[in-house]
Amino acid sequence: MIPNQNYRQLQENYLFSEVARRAAAYRKAHPERELLHMGIGDVTLPLCGAVVDALKQAAEEMGKPETFRGYGPEQGYAFLREAVKGYYAGRGVELDVDEIFISDGAKSDLGNILDLLDRENTVCIPDPVYPVYVDTNLMDGRKIVFAAATEANGFLPLPDDSLAADVIYLCSPNNPTGAVYRRDQLQRWVDYANERRALILFDAAYEAFIQDPELPRSIFEINGARTCAVEFCSLSKTAGFTGTRCGYTVVPEELCFGGMRFQKMWLRRQATKFNGVSYLVQRGAQAVFTPEGQRQVKENLAYYRRNAAVIMQALEELGVWYTGGKNSPYLWLRCPGGKPSWDFFDCLLHTAGIVGTPGSGFGRNGEHYFRLTAFSSRANTEKAMERLKALQAAL
Amino acid sequence: MIPNQNYRQLQENYLFSEVARRAAAYRKAHPERELLHMGIGDVTLPLCGAVVDALKQAAEEMGKPETFRGYGPEQGYAFLREAVKGYYAGRGVELDVDEIFISDGAKSDLGNILDLLDRENTVCIPDPVYPVYVDTNLMDGRKIVFAAATEANGFLPLPDDSLAADVIYLCSPNNPTGAVYRRDQLQRWVDYANERRALILFDAAYEAFIQDPELPRSIFEINGARTCAVEFCSLSKTAGFTGTRCGYTVVPEELCFGGMRFQKMWLRRQATKFNGVSYLVQRGAQAVFTPEGQRQVKENLAYYRRNAAVIMQALEELGVWYTGGKNSPYLWLRCPGGKPSWDFFDCLLHTAGIVGTPGSGFGRNGEHYFRLTAFSSRANTEKAMERLKALQAAL
Repeated sequence: MIPNQNYRQLQENYLFSEVARRAAAYRKAHPERELLHMGIGDVTLPLCGAVVDALKQAAEEMGKPETFRGYGPEQGYAFLREAVKGYYAGRGVELDVDEIFISDGAKSDLGNILDLLDRENTVCIPDPVYPVYVDTNLMDGRKIVFAAATEANGFLPLPDDSLAADVIYLCSPNNPTGAVYRRDQLQRWVDYANERRALILFDAAYEAFIQDPELPRSIFEINGARTCAVEFCSLSKTAGFTGTRCGYTVVPEELCFGGMRFQKMWLRRQATKFNGVSYLVQRGAQAVFTPEGQRQVKENLAYYRRNAAVIMQALEELGVWYTGGKNSPYLWLRCPGGKPSWDFFDCLLHTAGIVGTPGSGFGRNGEHYFRLTAFSSRANTEKAMERLKALQAAL
Repeated sequence: MIPNQNYRQLQENYLFSEVARRAAAYRKAHPERELLHMGIGDVTLPLCGAVVDALKQAAEEMGKPETFRGYGPEQGYAFLREAVKGYYAGRGVELDVDEIFISDGAKSDLGNILDLLDRENTVCIPDPVYPVYVDTNLMDGRKIVFAAATEANGFLPLPDDSLAADVIYLCSPNNPTGAVYRRDQLQRWVDYANERRALILFDAAYEAFIQDPELPRSIFEINGARTCAVEFCSLSKTAGFTGTRCGYTVVPEELCFGGMRFQKMWLRRQATKFNGVSYLVQRGAQAVFTPEGQRQVKENLAYYRRNAAVIMQALEELGVWYTGGKNSPYLWLRCPGGKPSWDFFDCLLHTAGIVGTPGSGFGRNGEHYFRLTAFSSRANTEKAMERLKALQAAL
């Protein structure tokens, strides 16, 4: 058997393991020092009450003959697809339930969607970005071109005539930079894609953090997106589902390439290689979209936003340049003193006991930047910022 | 964007939709007639108490800050991998926990494992068989050769010198035929694979139905399997998890092709394109492997086995040739009177109100055969068999 040789091109997933290694070494050398983890992309607040109740009720149902559920529809139960449809309608985006596919998370679908793409396509990926876009395409041997995200373009690259891409990844609000595309900017990408018959893969995992009503939360708020885009979303950050696993992918009916209907292809893929999300989890997810569930998850989102505000205030007091935080759980700061990312990581770890994420781990343009997140506890966030301010001289 | 042209080679998933279409048409024409569904591959008994309790407790944990769980390990929690390890050890198969990957079901992993295989490999698939093996390889454009499963070989094809395959699918107990390989037969496949450096993908989804202690329940009971095989298993039929979604895949450490360690490749694939199974579901799955959970799921398995016995007795009384049923939830019968599968389907539907599955839907060699399953309720199973016996004259 010949294995997929493209796997030889993958580098070790170095970033987070190296962060963990250095933090562990420091902890071993300084067991008395409390480490504050400000780099994690995971939520810390528990599931809200409405979700827990729905999960428990679904577990009860599964234990009784009259309410037990076996195989469900691979695309997801209608009750949850209707709830997602309603969520989009609340923002003026009309979808058909057949366009909504329930998934076990955006990461799975972002990877699996590549099954539908010929390997000869050229893929455009922003730099820096969530490493999964690059790795999943390397696994297929696709050619990748990078769109530079820099301070000069506000970490929001736009298309120009020199770009020749068949597939375009956009992540807004962005991981790791926290930058959010405006409508007119997304319109440029949609126009580019429609002109070139390119496909946009739009990662909206952080849409719930957008507060500014002028900023688009879905690519489908943009004219023409239905003929060029697929949107991936997740309850991971919206409702604390990182360990519960549920998301959704929107594939418009109009989407068609080379005479092949993309929605039909995706349904065929999912029906053949997937058996749907656990009934319990789908009932838990449905609860997120009820009025009570929305009220509860919004409280949690507000908690994380206040954490972000604490970080922003500290950075402003310190005179450190940053972006993100307002409409995103991520804060992306320029390393003080022009330090390389890993040097600043070591400096923060050794002088303040703070663990963050070096920007260079997200791509070449991330060098000299650093990511902090709003997902820690309030107490830890405040403590970390106090330590940071006490370090002012060192910065 | 160029879509994956291989999707053009896929036929509509005709079998079960056509079964449903004909059943619905009959129901509409004869609303007074009770239809008995004896073709379903889905379980009907609810989750056992130990599982329901574990699910509810996990839901409670997820609602409290001190016990909440965010992202888990992509490979699955150690508590569940240890439980699976213990399950195998109970049958004398020693595994390392790093060889066990928790999945959302065998179907997902059986499809996704193909990511690791070059598209130039030739794949050997039994005929008839679970249609997913064929479709997932068509999607990648791989060359498929079929191994004929016939009455002559007991529906258990074996390798011979003429076979040139890089990848071999085996499903034992088999879906749809219910046939189970003996040790000496599996040894021939393992020897073939090791000699040719081929990979065996072993689908053990129905292993829990094996009663005969002489029959192997895992490919890893066979000498040499650790250098050529991956095993896929599922709690779907073992513990009624068809709607709850959990399974496991075993990738031995020794497995290596062209200098690439297969286990490492699979871990990289899962860490990049998957985020693990829901914490709740993993706790539910863990409960299956406790002494109380095992006692409860074995009661359910015994219920289905008694259904199978009811069907076997009826077929024997009727003098209908069949295989399966003893160590499998599937019964595979020769259509009486040499009828083509779909003709017998229509005959059973119209004369007895019984819905089964035509064998030809599983492959060319399934023509003139028919699948019944033990997953219905006892009452329906008995009623269906009474109707069948009353039809004796027609058969």
